[in-house]
Amino acid sequence: MDTETPESESQPTKRDQVRDFVETAIVRNTILTIIIFNAVMLGLSTSNSVMASAGGLITFLDDIVLTIFVIELLLKFYGYGLRFFSSAWNVFDFFVVGVGLLPQGAGLSALRGLRVIRALRLLSVIPQMRAVVQALLDALPGMGAVIVMISIVFYVFAVMATLMYGGTFPEWFGTLGASLYSLFQIMTLESWSMGIVRPVMDEHPMAWLFFVPFIIITAFSVLNLFIGLLVTTMQSAVEEEAEAEMAKLQELVRSETDIVDEHVLELRDEIRSLRSEIASLKGGGDV
Amino acid sequence: MDTETPESESQPTKRDQVRDFVETAIVRNTILTIIIFNAVMLGLSTSNSVMASAGGLITFLDDIVLTIFVIELLLKFYGYGLRFFSSAWNVFDFFVVGVGLLPQGAGLSALRGLRVIRALRLLSVIPQMRAVVQALLDALPGMGAVIVMISIVFYVFAVMATLMYGGTFPEWFGTLGASLYSLFQIMTLESWSMGIVRPVMDEHPMAWLFFVPFIIITAFSVLNLFIGLLVTTMQSAVEEEAEAEMAKLQELVRSETDIVDEHVLELRDEIRSLRSEIASLKGGGDV
Amino acid sequence: MDTETPESESQPTKRDQVRDFVETAIVRNTILTIIIFNAVMLGLSTSNSVMASAGGLITFLDDIVLTIFVIELLLKFYGYGLRFFSSAWNVFDFFVVGVGLLPQGAGLSALRGLRVIRALRLLSVIPQMRAVVQALLDALPGMGAVIVMISIVFYVFAVMATLMYGGTFPEWFGTLGASLYSLFQIMTLESWSMGIVRPVMDEHPMAWLFFVPFIIITAFSVLNLFIGLLVTTMQSAVEEEAEAEMAKLQELVRSETDIVDEHVLELRDEIRSLRSEIASLKGGGDV
Amino acid sequence: MDTETPESESQPTKRDQVRDFVETAIVRNTILTIIIFNAVMLGLSTSNSVMASAGGLITFLDDIVLTIFVIELLLKFYGYGLRFFSSAWNVFDFFVVGVGLLPQGAGLSALRGLRVIRALRLLSVIPQMRAVVQALLDALPGMGAVIVMISIVFYVFAVMATLMYGGTFPEWFGTLGASLYSLFQIMTLESWSMGIVRPVMDEHPMAWLFFVPFIIITAFSVLNLFIGLLVTTMQSAVEEEAEAEMAKLQELVRSETDIVDEHVLELRDEIRSLRSEIASLKGGGDV
Repeated sequence: MDTETPESESQPTKRDQVRDFVETAIVRNTILTIIIFNAVMLGLSTSNSVMASAGGLITFLDDIVLTIFVIELLLKFYGYGLRFFSSAWNVFDFFVVGVGLLPQGAGLSALRGLRVIRALRLLSVIPQMRAVVQALLDALPGMGAVIVMISIVFYVFAVMATLMYGGTFPEWFGTLGASLYSLFQIMTLESWSMGIVRPVMDEHPMAWLFFVPFIIITAFSVLNLFIGLLVTTMQSAVEEEAEAEMAKLQELVRSETDIVDEHVLELRDEIRSLRSEIASLKGGGDV
Repeated sequence: MDTETPESESQPTKRDQVRDFVETAIVRNTILTIIIFNAVMLGLSTSNSVMASAGGLITFLDDIVLTIFVIELLLKFYGYGLRFFSSAWNVFDFFVVGVGLLPQGAGLSALRGLRVIRALRLLSVIPQMRAVVQALLDALPGMGAVIVMISIVFYVFAVMATLMYGGTFPEWFGTLGASLYSLFQIMTLESWSMGIVRPVMDEHPMAWLFFVPFIIITAFSVLNLFIGLLVTTMQSAVEEEAEAEMAKLQELVRSETDIVDEHVLELRDEIRSLRSEIASLKGGGDV
Repeated sequence: MDTETPESESQPTKRDQVRDFVETAIVRNTILTIIIFNAVMLGLSTSNSVMASAGGLITFLDDIVLTIFVIELLLKFYGYGLRFFSSAWNVFDFFVVGVGLLPQGAGLSALRGLRVIRALRLLSVIPQMRAVVQALLDALPGMGAVIVMISIVFYVFAVMATLMYGGTFPEWFGTLGASLYSLFQIMTLESWSMGIVRPVMDEHPMAWLFFVPFIIITAFSVLNLFIGLLVTTMQSAVEEEAEAEMAKLQELVRSETDIVDEHVLELRDEIRSLRSEIASLKGGGDV
Repeated sequence: MDTETPESESQPTKRDQVRDFVETAIVRNTILTIIIFNAVMLGLSTSNSVMASAGGLITFLDDIVLTIFVIELLLKFYGYGLRFFSSAWNVFDFFVVGVGLLPQGAGLSALRGLRVIRALRLLSVIPQMRAVVQALLDALPGMGAVIVMISIVFYVFAVMATLMYGGTFPEWFGTLGASLYSLFQIMTLESWSMGIVRPVMDEHPMAWLFFVPFIIITAFSVLNLFIGLLVTTMQSAVEEEAEAEMAKLQELVRSETDIVDEHVLELRDEIRSLRSEIASLKGGGDV
């Protein structure tokens, strides 16, 4: 009690204070407001006329918002230490804010666009959105095996397509990457026949023997992915429901039989009394 | 009883009479017939040959139908007062009839077409159709969070696409609106690769890193939207069923144990009689 | 018993004999074999080289097959009378065979093709196929209300599209029929944007306000159609299962409580004997 | 015990030893490592620059890998004898390895690509992948009847399309095979309208009466295929769950009523003792 260490409860450290501060409702709501404001501003920055008239202001405000985000993350990092990275949401925030700090060359329109990813913080800051995203991510592990299987099928078919059609159709199947992209397009059924397979069949008449099974296999696999996901979701939903019903029913069976049992036990007592009375009667008769 | 106010039950006001009148089966069926007649007439008005020979008649009849609808709505509005707007169906009728009253410029073919929306009153007047539409709308709230999430993803990706590809592909990504439309098209998988992403990749070779994740994220989100909807629907259907079965089973458990319990209680009475007889015997033995 | 009418069971009429004959396994299997043979032959008739070398033979065999089918149907019709048409399968057979009897002009390639529909008798003759088709058709009534709703939406949107875009895009929306076809294409998402809506938006910039809601409404309706179908199918499947389980459980509850009840009743008899013994004892004591 | 046959357990034959050897974890993992190494190598072989600099090495390594696979299969075949072919996975391995042994002409790029199918052994060697593929295949039998039905519909529509549109559109419907391919494309909804049906309708205005029903029928059939699959999967999942719950509940009903029954039986014993006491009392009274 006397040797108060800095970590003791009675005297919160600076770190604790900072941690508590960044988690207060006021700070959270302020950050949320800034994110929404920033998202709207980023939307406005897509308009050439707005940028022409107020481009400087928007760039200035964007820098301020970025500064606030950096300070917020630094405070969180100071408050939590390395535990900061144990939350996937913090890692996400760290990444999307960090993108904004990368140096921007004049021509790097890609980086300019990438900064906008910061607005996805709406998903990490609003609790309901977090829950939805979490639910989506929770579905992934159950799909793991099928995803690996689809990946293997994709890889093997892409290597085959590159070797077989890479020479004649370099644009679509010239490299492994090009083949993977083209097969993804074919899996989504976009222009698979008129755009890709019919031209390929002009050169390789048996190409349908490669592409039609690919479509059927991937469609069937994706279908099973979906069915697996659906069954898991539904099963856990129905299970909860069924367990509640079962618990109620078990309770009923127990309470009903308990009543009967109680009466039977009362009966036993009754008969025991009777026996002792008869015994006394017998004793009385003996006397 | 003496102080009869205008709102008293014994003397319906004019408003009540009007309200009762517009809800009678005859009025409802007349209106339904007129709506169907109007729908057929609007269909005929799409034929140039019909319009050439009987265009005046059709326009005249359409005006009469519109007048009848306006009178019906005015009567309803008089009968219900502001409560009229508490029913979403009335608001819908008010809107679709109101569109027909807008002034029509010669060139405004859009408005001419919009008048036809009036035929959608078929959905609001036929009770079975109301039920179907209601069921569709009832599904929406449960989908709220996922829809908001998809909207945020759409907005962020649209801003990014505008900033990154707006310069080189103004037709598809020139403005935020154009980007939103193009991303919607890509989400439906229509010509996403051959029509949009392959041309974009000619300029920005890494564009697939933007579009393929977008397709996967939205496809997966829509899938989850659907699964959520399905599980909710099925759960409530199964629940009802299960509850009925459970109630039957609980009833059985109760009645069966009640029979046993009754017999046990009879037994107790039997034994009590026995005890009193023995007591009398004992008393008799004592005498 | 003496007055044997022609309809009596002991003396089958000619009609009964014919009816029994066409339903014997031999006749059925012969017909099935002929249908399969005919289906293969119709497939061969698509080959120009086969038709060049054996066209006469194929036409001759086809006429024989058609004659056999007509005789089979006439026998069935004689055997069953007007009850023949009470089976949807007979009506189907009647229709697809009848098509082959229509006169064929030289240029009527459509009719030539339509004759092939006869091979669909495979579906009506093989019992397993009948069951599958029946299951598909059984699903339809439950979808009735939603199908009517989608039809109304289709009709209203088609009239609107014809009035609004018929003038500028006569090929797609020139008539009500053309609009219905184009909207069906758009509902299947085929080239909806690149092929139809983007060109339309060049003329009518706000056209997306018409088409995007149409896509969302129809997609959502079809989704609900599907969910409704799925829930109904699953519910009846689960119901059967659940009822069997419930019956088993109810049986268990009954038998278990019956055992207890039996023992309780034995007990009552025991106690009654006891009472009578005591009564006799009492009587004995009295004596 | 004395007459040790070669098949006795105490002295494993050479075959048994070989069989045990190819199934040891070390051999399995070595093979798996080689398959992965081979898959990566096959991927590298798609790159022209890699092939230019190390093509000889890759071909050499590929030959070694193929030799190892052949030896592995020969050992398995020796170990299992004809039972080797009773496992579908062995047949699969036999087939995909065998493809690599086919003679390769210089221009046969198809065969060059087909060799890559060997990498699909990843699916047959990793147990989790086997389970996923097995689950997919297990779903097939339940879909048998609907697949046969869809095949019949496909065949009949393909014959019809060839006869009706083969003359005017030989590229799409010139032969039965071309028609089957085109109908498959139409079933996947790829460019069905803009690419195929609209051009066909320019020649045959009523062609939509053929293609739109085809789309609706196949879409509806595939939907039912999917629903059937889903219901079966879900039913068996729910069934297991329900059976476990039921077993628990039945156990509870049994144990609860057993307790009551035991008490009732105790009661009987009690009463029997009472009777004998009374009998002795009576006897005592008689004395």
